[in-house]
Amino acid sequence: MARQVRAVRTRRAVIQAAAEVFAERGYAAATIADILERAGVTKGALYFHFESKEALARGVIEAQITSDYQVPRELKLQEWVDVGMTLAYQIPRDAVLLAGIRLSADPHSRRLFGSAWPAWTELSRAYLSRAKEQGEVLPHVVPLETAECFFAAWLGTQMFSEVTAQWHDMSERVSVLFNHMLPAIATPAALIRLDTAPDRGARVVAEAQRARQAAEPAPADA
Amino acid sequence: MARQVRAVRTRRAVIQAAAEVFAERGYAAATIADILERAGVTKGALYFHFESKEALARGVIEAQITSDYQVPRELKLQEWVDVGMTLAYQIPRDAVLLAGIRLSADPHSRRLFGSAWPAWTELSRAYLSRAKEQGEVLPHVVPLETAECFFAAWLGTQMFSEVTAQWHDMSERVSVLFNHMLPAIATPAALIRLDTAPDRGARVVAEAQRARQAAEPAPADA
Repeated sequence: MARQVRAVRTRRAVIQAAAEVFAERGYAAATIADILERAGVTKGALYFHFESKEALARGVIEAQITSDYQVPRELKLQEWVDVGMTLAYQIPRDAVLLAGIRLSADPHSRRLFGSAWPAWTELSRAYLSRAKEQGEVLPHVVPLETAECFFAAWLGTQMFSEVTAQWHDMSERVSVLFNHMLPAIATPAALIRLDTAPDRGARVVAEAQRARQAAEPAPADA
Repeated sequence: MARQVRAVRTRRAVIQAAAEVFAERGYAAATIADILERAGVTKGALYFHFESKEALARGVIEAQITSDYQVPRELKLQEWVDVGMTLAYQIPRDAVLLAGIRLSADPHSRRLFGSAWPAWTELSRAYLSRAKEQGEVLPHVVPLETAECFFAAWLGTQMFSEVTAQWHDMSERVSVLFNHMLPAIATPAALIRLDTAPDRGARVVAEAQRARQAAEPAPADA
């Protein structure tokens, strides 16, 4: 058990270090030596988890999709909004998200490693399908179509916010995006109960962190 | 007069050739010699209009914004939809649009030449403001906010369609985008009269071309 926990922590530290190095220097210029130094782990520990720089890039792309900030809500649409709003809040603060965006935006690295686009779209589709089963979504909505439409719009919003404001207005812009799309998606009874305020992401991240701290036993060796 | 017409045609031919060469080889690899050969104009004629490769890139970016497919409509919102739908239809067919997108997407060339983003946003803002004056837009809509939100979403939709389908489904995706946003923008009375069908762009382009042919006198030297 202790060994498993240590392995998970090592893997996370390596992903975090790789993401930071990729985000700072770009994938091509990054070296395994840089990543080792940043992670503070042995070469053997790194190669136990990732056999190559390519495997590290794939690991960073996969690590973007996380349930770290998922808090269950009565409305599935609110959980969907919360994914979009916590991501908007986290992007400028999270090297894994930043590196993942850079890797997915580059056509060359996309061919090498794939991207998180299909996983993001599928995540939205699943939330929208469950919301539809619960009667929160208008009858004409096709979850896959809406998921792709929203993901593409979210992607452009992220790009626009990066270029014009280095993501400083990302939470405001994603809030405005939800407000422009949800009236075509949600039933009125669901719509009126949704929270899409710009500070929603920050509040949900704080709530998820408190919940995690309350659930974890205090480390004995701290 | 004849000289003016010839100058306009030469400028257009040079822009078109530059766009094709930029779109095929990228800006960095393109040479003035390539562009001259493609345009079939003299060096003197090219330099009369554009003093450098940088000036050509700026010319291509500016030439994206055109009123070529603008047909006046009773609803200003329909004219706004038509801009989005004709662009979606034209992108895979129009070297100037393709080259402009490539130039605007690259951070390095954006620093050198600027981009068409502010002009596109302003175009949307102006349409939305006039639509609001005519009572077609819901009272809470802030034209600049909605224009930026839509432009960013359009940008991501274009990127998503390029990567997943080489723009083959661009008209369908932009139609879906309008259908997801207009209910939050238009009054019900305007909404019900809007045409956002996927083939809207193709129909408006054909209509604008017919109108132009009818208005132009047949060239005497043809």
